[in-house]
Amino acid sequence: MPQPATEPSADRREFYDRLGRHHLSPLWLSLATLVPRQPASGCRPAIWRYPELRSLLLEAGGLVSVEEAERRVLVLENPAFGGQSRITTSLYAGLQLVLPGERARGHRHTQSALRFVLEGTGAYTAVDGERATMHPGDFIITPSWQWHDHGNDTDDPVVWLDGLDIPLVQALDAGFAEPMHAVEQAVTRPAGDSLARFGANLLPVDHRPRGLASPVFSYPYDRTREALETLGRNGEPDPCHGHKMRFVNPVTGGFAMPTIGTFMQLLPRGFETKPYRSTDATVFTPVEGEGRTHVGAAVLEWRARDVFVVPSWATVRHQAASDAVLFSFSDRPVQQATGLFREERLP
Amino acid sequence: MPQPATEPSADRREFYDRLGRHHLSPLWLSLATLVPRQPASGCRPAIWRYPELRSLLLEAGGLVSVEEAERRVLVLENPAFGGQSRITTSLYAGLQLVLPGERARGHRHTQSALRFVLEGTGAYTAVDGERATMHPGDFIITPSWQWHDHGNDTDDPVVWLDGLDIPLVQALDAGFAEPMHAVEQAVTRPAGDSLARFGANLLPVDHRPRGLASPVFSYPYDRTREALETLGRNGEPDPCHGHKMRFVNPVTGGFAMPTIGTFMQLLPRGFETKPYRSTDATVFTPVEGEGRTHVGAAVLEWRARDVFVVPSWATVRHQAASDAVLFSFSDRPVQQATGLFREERLP
Amino acid sequence: MPQPATEPSADRREFYDRLGRHHLSPLWLSLATLVPRQPASGCRPAIWRYPELRSLLLEAGGLVSVEEAERRVLVLENPAFGGQSRITTSLYAGLQLVLPGERARGHRHTQSALRFVLEGTGAYTAVDGERATMHPGDFIITPSWQWHDHGNDTDDPVVWLDGLDIPLVQALDAGFAEPMHAVEQAVTRPAGDSLARFGANLLPVDHRPRGLASPVFSYPYDRTREALETLGRNGEPDPCHGHKMRFVNPVTGGFAMPTIGTFMQLLPRGFETKPYRSTDATVFTPVEGEGRTHVGAAVLEWRARDVFVVPSWATVRHQAASDAVLFSFSDRPVQQATGLFREERLP
Amino acid sequence: MPQPATEPSADRREFYDRLGRHHLSPLWLSLATLVPRQPASGCRPAIWRYPELRSLLLEAGGLVSVEEAERRVLVLENPAFGGQSRITTSLYAGLQLVLPGERARGHRHTQSALRFVLEGTGAYTAVDGERATMHPGDFIITPSWQWHDHGNDTDDPVVWLDGLDIPLVQALDAGFAEPMHAVEQAVTRPAGDSLARFGANLLPVDHRPRGLASPVFSYPYDRTREALETLGRNGEPDPCHGHKMRFVNPVTGGFAMPTIGTFMQLLPRGFETKPYRSTDATVFTPVEGEGRTHVGAAVLEWRARDVFVVPSWATVRHQAASDAVLFSFSDRPVQQATGLFREERLP
Repeated sequence: MPQPATEPSADRREFYDRLGRHHLSPLWLSLATLVPRQPASGCRPAIWRYPELRSLLLEAGGLVSVEEAERRVLVLENPAFGGQSRITTSLYAGLQLVLPGERARGHRHTQSALRFVLEGTGAYTAVDGERATMHPGDFIITPSWQWHDHGNDTDDPVVWLDGLDIPLVQALDAGFAEPMHAVEQAVTRPAGDSLARFGANLLPVDHRPRGLASPVFSYPYDRTREALETLGRNGEPDPCHGHKMRFVNPVTGGFAMPTIGTFMQLLPRGFETKPYRSTDATVFTPVEGEGRTHVGAAVLEWRARDVFVVPSWATVRHQAASDAVLFSFSDRPVQQATGLFREERLP
Repeated sequence: MPQPATEPSADRREFYDRLGRHHLSPLWLSLATLVPRQPASGCRPAIWRYPELRSLLLEAGGLVSVEEAERRVLVLENPAFGGQSRITTSLYAGLQLVLPGERARGHRHTQSALRFVLEGTGAYTAVDGERATMHPGDFIITPSWQWHDHGNDTDDPVVWLDGLDIPLVQALDAGFAEPMHAVEQAVTRPAGDSLARFGANLLPVDHRPRGLASPVFSYPYDRTREALETLGRNGEPDPCHGHKMRFVNPVTGGFAMPTIGTFMQLLPRGFETKPYRSTDATVFTPVEGEGRTHVGAAVLEWRARDVFVVPSWATVRHQAASDAVLFSFSDRPVQQATGLFREERLP
Repeated sequence: MPQPATEPSADRREFYDRLGRHHLSPLWLSLATLVPRQPASGCRPAIWRYPELRSLLLEAGGLVSVEEAERRVLVLENPAFGGQSRITTSLYAGLQLVLPGERARGHRHTQSALRFVLEGTGAYTAVDGERATMHPGDFIITPSWQWHDHGNDTDDPVVWLDGLDIPLVQALDAGFAEPMHAVEQAVTRPAGDSLARFGANLLPVDHRPRGLASPVFSYPYDRTREALETLGRNGEPDPCHGHKMRFVNPVTGGFAMPTIGTFMQLLPRGFETKPYRSTDATVFTPVEGEGRTHVGAAVLEWRARDVFVVPSWATVRHQAASDAVLFSFSDRPVQQATGLFREERLP
Repeated sequence: MPQPATEPSADRREFYDRLGRHHLSPLWLSLATLVPRQPASGCRPAIWRYPELRSLLLEAGGLVSVEEAERRVLVLENPAFGGQSRITTSLYAGLQLVLPGERARGHRHTQSALRFVLEGTGAYTAVDGERATMHPGDFIITPSWQWHDHGNDTDDPVVWLDGLDIPLVQALDAGFAEPMHAVEQAVTRPAGDSLARFGANLLPVDHRPRGLASPVFSYPYDRTREALETLGRNGEPDPCHGHKMRFVNPVTGGFAMPTIGTFMQLLPRGFETKPYRSTDATVFTPVEGEGRTHVGAAVLEWRARDVFVVPSWATVRHQAASDAVLFSFSDRPVQQATGLFREERLP
């Protein structure tokens, strides 16, 4: 399906202009672009180093007033998508700083969000009347249309990675948002309640799901780490993934959120994964350890708290210089629900 | 969440420039745009009249050679999205002409497609070894990654409306395509086989679904029309929808395709629907009758075979000047699978 | 796990007696019976000839008064389960006669029921405000807890086969029943409404399922026959099943009822199926044609309207002397929902 | 639907005899029994006291040799179903003793089984290559058709409650069993592996379910107790249930087994539940505490490790004399899958 290389003739040009006035365009000029042979968004591999990010964030902390604190986020933009606030075609990522004593005013929106804690212990995110205390490595969700607010009552700055489905919701044109009247929601349940209530392989006998997201909204790193360690002790790593797990909604066994899949994987020291590719462009952040990841021809050297992105259908190989744990997220749930997900283990 | 109205100070500007060099952007400048209060794509209501479309299509028939025939499609572009080949944020629509004796070379792609026949009887679309003969009002699907080709062996031109999920697949960066080596696939099953096999409220005893789309790939208008007429005789129309049905995949009861929902509704002569809005921007084409549709402040006067589009969350009211039948399609299956779908009946 | 062959000692006997007084029993005496190597109910193959059944039914028509007419049913009892009103371990079957002018008073019960019409055209079953006119070969369901009544306004007797899940509901101890105050329910929808509304590969746009059974409650034989014929023309018969289809609930693609699976199969003249066995004991009634079925060592010669039963895990081979169509039903939906279903194609 | 009270006439009797010879029976004599107004199995409330059970079990330990040890189980028979090895219409319950040094030879069967540990710490059940160490209050499953064996390497006797779906599998006539060649299966995974792998709100990224049962086969009491305590601290008890949870299969959010639902509930000291009834006859065993349960007119006084049964549709009220924890199981998954489940909160 190659495109015509030559300039259109004058009568064709006149015809195309006339089409344009009717809000029509000739498919024969754009078909190959619209229906490419394989993923062709131009999304590029990229890495952001935590030390630089942290330094810029703290600088932003000085520039952006307390009133703007809820927006004190640096958006990670894919180099191919400058000015579009997207790290992949469907996902947004940002680094958020909450300084000691700050609060981010509560709101809700139809975009699903995850917080992955990079630095600082003791801040909280409140969802559905419960405050989750945040520790590095914790994975926290704020599901679609649920009120959430957060604050930092400790003496140290707190930094987390935000992941949202903003570009997807734009593509579906289904975004709604609403601010909370109060700064904070009332705390109606003690910390840890949702994990005990929904996350202990039991469910309340008459539980009726509310929405598609997990009612467990905080997945503490200590439990996740313990599960990975057990897998690491008890069996061989997968050639392409090491010991890789996905976070689940215990009410369904599906992903924790309907639009964003989240994963945690353990790569033993010295382990090199076999080449693999999939259609869900993925954002990674190492929680522990260091190593390098080959993404096509690019090589990304990473340490804990860096953030890097692997485009759709790019071939990936990880090499762990030390025992390493990687958190990652992608739009896999949407791709699976629509039958578009593909993955391939390469020789 | 209003955006700052004033120009940034010099030090802020310098900071923003520095951020840009690190592929970062300040969220506090873009939050309101990224997370709008309600759907804010700018998608506009619009209508394309069939007589004009037909005339331009035939003109294209003269300009575009037989070799290019497979691409002889005029893409309907939302006036808000010029040059983007999308009629809504997530959907593509085009009008395709196949002249007597022509064939569109077979191919397959991960984009799901529908054909809705506007004019001409006797052309065919082949899917999975079976050729569906096309009549006006027939709804035909070519599911993701299934080979399809079409041709017109009659003496008259054939025109249909194409609906595809191209923008959605772009947003997910999951597009693959492959041309067929032969022009046409071999015919291995007689016409009507899939409808008898899967569409008679029976399924083969050991049927295992292949993919998420309906194995019934042709929904003939005569059956659809008969069902609507029965509903029209037997009960009151819904205040907002008239007698409205959705096409289903008989293997699951879900939508015929996982990314595009399709609907047919009967509006009795003189019926006026109550205002309604939903988050799935929708493309309509009347099959029979005439009337007008209020979309927010706009009024669209339509006749059979026109095509019009209703943006997300726009308030819709239909008025049928005669008995009218409307076909429509939207991305509702994706919105429902992701929990984003909203609809509202207004007072 | 053989059972002890010898008589228990006196002290054991005394112990067993003592256990019995505490409502206890020693598992070591019954384990092999309770947990058999393979299905061991004793259920036997059997056939009932229609001419005899019909004659006895008509005789019952003379004995049983009009007031008792709603119960004028001969229950087909598996020879192994005399007095238990079951044709298999989980299913009930009966032959019902409705004489000209009679009505069976309406009621509802949690047992699911099917009617399969053997003789007579023009009687009706009413479900959910709609009357289905009955023709030979029609398959009609009266779902759990839905009001139903039937009558015969023609001049000829009508005979159908009833299939119910009575023994299963007994095993679950979940049976409820309620008589209707009026003899008949009000007719609120014309005949054919549910088939048009739910059975034309379309569903009402806002349809919410009520219960697990199909909202299409009548599957007319002419449509079923046409689908089978198309399959017969278009492809090879399955070696074990011929052209076999299952009736589906178009809202889910599952079985028409949650407890009883129903099937129709076409065996071309002269076709002999390969041996097959499955765990769902099955009741068959030929609609057309004649032939014989080997069930283990037994040979059942059948003609249209006979009824025969194949026990769980018995090896089945059909031989069609003429083009034959067989209706059948079993508890397969329950076996599949519980993971107990097994089937095997034998060499 | 009352049955005729009078004796049948001579000609009717002759007719009934003749029907019997054709394996037919007259429905008009049995309809009210087959289709009762409400659950009518005759199942009775009953309680077995642990001290008596334990004493009889130990006595059996002396009578039944080591070779028979795998069958050293006392079956709890509902007083209404003497000789039928069922505690409800669909469920089997038994008390099993494993003496120090004993092993129960491995086998597998299509019946699903649960073990609920009443006494003794340190015995094991092996499933799928992993041995679960058993502590009082632990809930362990041996899913359909999975090899399992158990042993007691401690110095103390171990007693657990077995719950199986034997009568249900009989009703479906779908029972298969197979002995293991070796006494024990090889241990291929360390204890705790399945809980870490599947039970920590994560699943292996490419996990494909095998069967319908939970891959977590051991639910340790300490985790269950902790979850209940958290619920008890954080919210009000349900009026009818106290703090009641169901064990789930983390792959689906459904019940841990497809045929047997299992529950654990905390009743605070002094709490009295409101009357409630449901169609799933339920077997209870208190893990901690004491109290009484009203079952219709019967009053059952219980202490930890007793076993009692509540028939279908019987009205239940619990009174906790101390903080009490009750384990229970029923056939609710089957009733829900078939649409037969009913429950009611009474005034």
